[in-house]
Amino acid sequence: MTKDKIKIGIMGFGTVGTGAYEILRKNEDALKKQIGAAIIVEKILVKDLNKKRAVFVPDELLTTNADDILENTEIDIVVELMGGVEPAYSYIIKALDNCKHIVTANKELLAKKGNAVFEIADKKGLAVEFEASVCGGVPVIKAFRRTLNTDRINRIMGIVNGTTNYILTKMAEEGSDYEEVLEEAKAKGYAETDPTADVEGYDAAYKMAILASIGFHMNVDINKVSREGISNISKRDIEYGKDLGWTIKLIGMAQEIDGKVEVGVSPMMLPAAHPMATVGGVNNAVFVNSESVGELMFYGPGAGQMPTGNSVASDIVEIAKQIALGNKQLLDCDCNENKEFMDEVHSCYYIRMDVENRPGVFAKIAGVFGNFEVSLESVLQKKTKGESAEIVLITSKVNEKSLKKAVDSIKALDVVNQVFNVIRVEGNGMN
Amino acid sequence: MTKDKIKIGIMGFGTVGTGAYEILRKNEDALKKQIGAAIIVEKILVKDLNKKRAVFVPDELLTTNADDILENTEIDIVVELMGGVEPAYSYIIKALDNCKHIVTANKELLAKKGNAVFEIADKKGLAVEFEASVCGGVPVIKAFRRTLNTDRINRIMGIVNGTTNYILTKMAEEGSDYEEVLEEAKAKGYAETDPTADVEGYDAAYKMAILASIGFHMNVDINKVSREGISNISKRDIEYGKDLGWTIKLIGMAQEIDGKVEVGVSPMMLPAAHPMATVGGVNNAVFVNSESVGELMFYGPGAGQMPTGNSVASDIVEIAKQIALGNKQLLDCDCNENKEFMDEVHSCYYIRMDVENRPGVFAKIAGVFGNFEVSLESVLQKKTKGESAEIVLITSKVNEKSLKKAVDSIKALDVVNQVFNVIRVEGNGMN
Repeated sequence: MTKDKIKIGIMGFGTVGTGAYEILRKNEDALKKQIGAAIIVEKILVKDLNKKRAVFVPDELLTTNADDILENTEIDIVVELMGGVEPAYSYIIKALDNCKHIVTANKELLAKKGNAVFEIADKKGLAVEFEASVCGGVPVIKAFRRTLNTDRINRIMGIVNGTTNYILTKMAEEGSDYEEVLEEAKAKGYAETDPTADVEGYDAAYKMAILASIGFHMNVDINKVSREGISNISKRDIEYGKDLGWTIKLIGMAQEIDGKVEVGVSPMMLPAAHPMATVGGVNNAVFVNSESVGELMFYGPGAGQMPTGNSVASDIVEIAKQIALGNKQLLDCDCNENKEFMDEVHSCYYIRMDVENRPGVFAKIAGVFGNFEVSLESVLQKKTKGESAEIVLITSKVNEKSLKKAVDSIKALDVVNQVFNVIRVEGNGMN
Repeated sequence: MTKDKIKIGIMGFGTVGTGAYEILRKNEDALKKQIGAAIIVEKILVKDLNKKRAVFVPDELLTTNADDILENTEIDIVVELMGGVEPAYSYIIKALDNCKHIVTANKELLAKKGNAVFEIADKKGLAVEFEASVCGGVPVIKAFRRTLNTDRINRIMGIVNGTTNYILTKMAEEGSDYEEVLEEAKAKGYAETDPTADVEGYDAAYKMAILASIGFHMNVDINKVSREGISNISKRDIEYGKDLGWTIKLIGMAQEIDGKVEVGVSPMMLPAAHPMATVGGVNNAVFVNSESVGELMFYGPGAGQMPTGNSVASDIVEIAKQIALGNKQLLDCDCNENKEFMDEVHSCYYIRMDVENRPGVFAKIAGVFGNFEVSLESVLQKKTKGESAEIVLITSKVNEKSLKKAVDSIKALDVVNQVFNVIRVEGNGMN
């Protein structure tokens, strides 16, 4: 009934795959004892058989043919670490068809195709584990699926992208401009040559879709996840935020209010005392507010070969233990409810603009906001330069759609030269 | 093969039991969907059948006879929430003998008898889940057992007792004395009428024994866990700590160096920038340093009816899912290695004493430290009052045993009136 060897196939052998392989190898004896069976890496799918690798891997393990894994009847678990939707998606479907359990770190695939994957896996009693897909080494996925599953989560806030958090932290610490820090981040390897996926919030949006799907037990349509990156944040916004006691972070926000959800990613102003405000550098954190438990935070390394590799290894071991015990049906994902997205999001906002420096301008601007039922908490004149003045407005908690309409009208005013930025303000006691 | 009703018996129906019962009841439909079976509370062991309860419970569920649960062949899971070693231990053993899975929140029992419990459970393929035993609603136990199990943990630091953290936070915020804040904590229900278990570190020691056992996969002898409480901490220590940029916390420390472990609880000075230093009030946090993942922190409510109740409920659901899937053998604890405790702990220390205010005193004191190979980083004169002076000494990283011997000799010096406190200093970059 039980097995003494659990065989795995690894698809994709880059940074994370190498890390997971190393962890399994280094801790071989301890894991064998824990599992009651040995984990055997049977095959590794690579692009280039002759590539020089950082770790020693016997030649006979390497293959360029996916079917050596997908159609290998010896293999119990397929570990997909290729990234991107295709061919990873087709491989995972084929692996499930062939009754293999899945471990994946692929956030884009899960965000775009997770539901299809989970549906097949659930029907067949196969496990899909994906701890490494969100927050690298921080075990948020298991916490959501295994502890908070008995609770009702109201709100999830995440700093889930290390690159942007590094950039914003550096900008705040050094008073530097975005472009300057981005170049530095590229040089240090914290940002890709094409940084779009990170700085425009795509990566964070995928991760928030995953957290929302397991947190709210729902099928999240990635197209409904709102997304705004940090490329428009200037050092002046950071400086003015600081004056107000706030820190700017790229925040993934998922909340459920009266059965409707909001899932999105955008820069937000957080009060400096908020636990998320102090999460610096490339670190990640997830903050949860739930009905029974209240406020929880998970904090740690959001990326990196060994932290992310450990999440992959722990998923493999989790499944291997069940197989070794002879258990046939593994846990399903329970994220298939259909929930509506909110029509209206309410929040406070920070707005920075350049206006003409003459009497009556404030009254005109305030009048437009009033017309759209956007009430203002404060208007701060930050800087005057001859005929123009830079001002910052803070709204009360308002309807985002009304705010956007108001801002569009404000932009059309002849006394307004430019609206630089509109940034959500969260957790300051006002909302 | 599979079951559509999972029956549980709850032993002890105080705060946590009531919370767990409420969570299972309120989320009944959602949980049934997740599990694929209904959780039925079959019996609840209480002391007094006629006690007025905060929640509605049908009379026929209540019993004062433990065997109505332990010998009930219908019951799959026994949820032990009585606290204390006996009769809880005998009940758990009997439940295991009768092939029931165990959920417990009983830290004292696990710290003192956990190994015996795990041994029987492992042999029989029965689960023992204990998320609620450490840090209330914060899912550290599952994180340790299910994600960090593939990693090698070097160090665990925990703020695992809410009462003492509340007292120290208040003392720091208000500059109040220990006794004063303790009375206030009692009035608010944050401290027991007899606060010994909390303020003298017993509660924290039990929790650290549990974390060390699952973190280092070892059998921890609770008698080897060092323990020092906070009743000796004065507002002056807090004030002087603040001057040095440090915060005093009651820290549970478990570390493994070269295969030998240290497990203990004592007040420690932490740099204000340390993530644990900002954990305030009754909150709990666990900070982990491990080989692959690096630094992780878990933060949240360490007590309370609903947070702790949720941890109990999630453990029940975890086991129920496996039963519902027809899985017979559940995961074991893997904490049975024998590891030696360290003979020597090395750290920096803060020492506050009252000495005679005359020339040559510093030289005498420094001479004694020198004799015991304890080197000093700094000596600060804090306050003079006629013929006496209060001084604070900070040592380099030294052997704790040598330090204690040195302090004993210092106490015997005629120029030393009193040694008030010796407090470990951690994570300040010096060690």
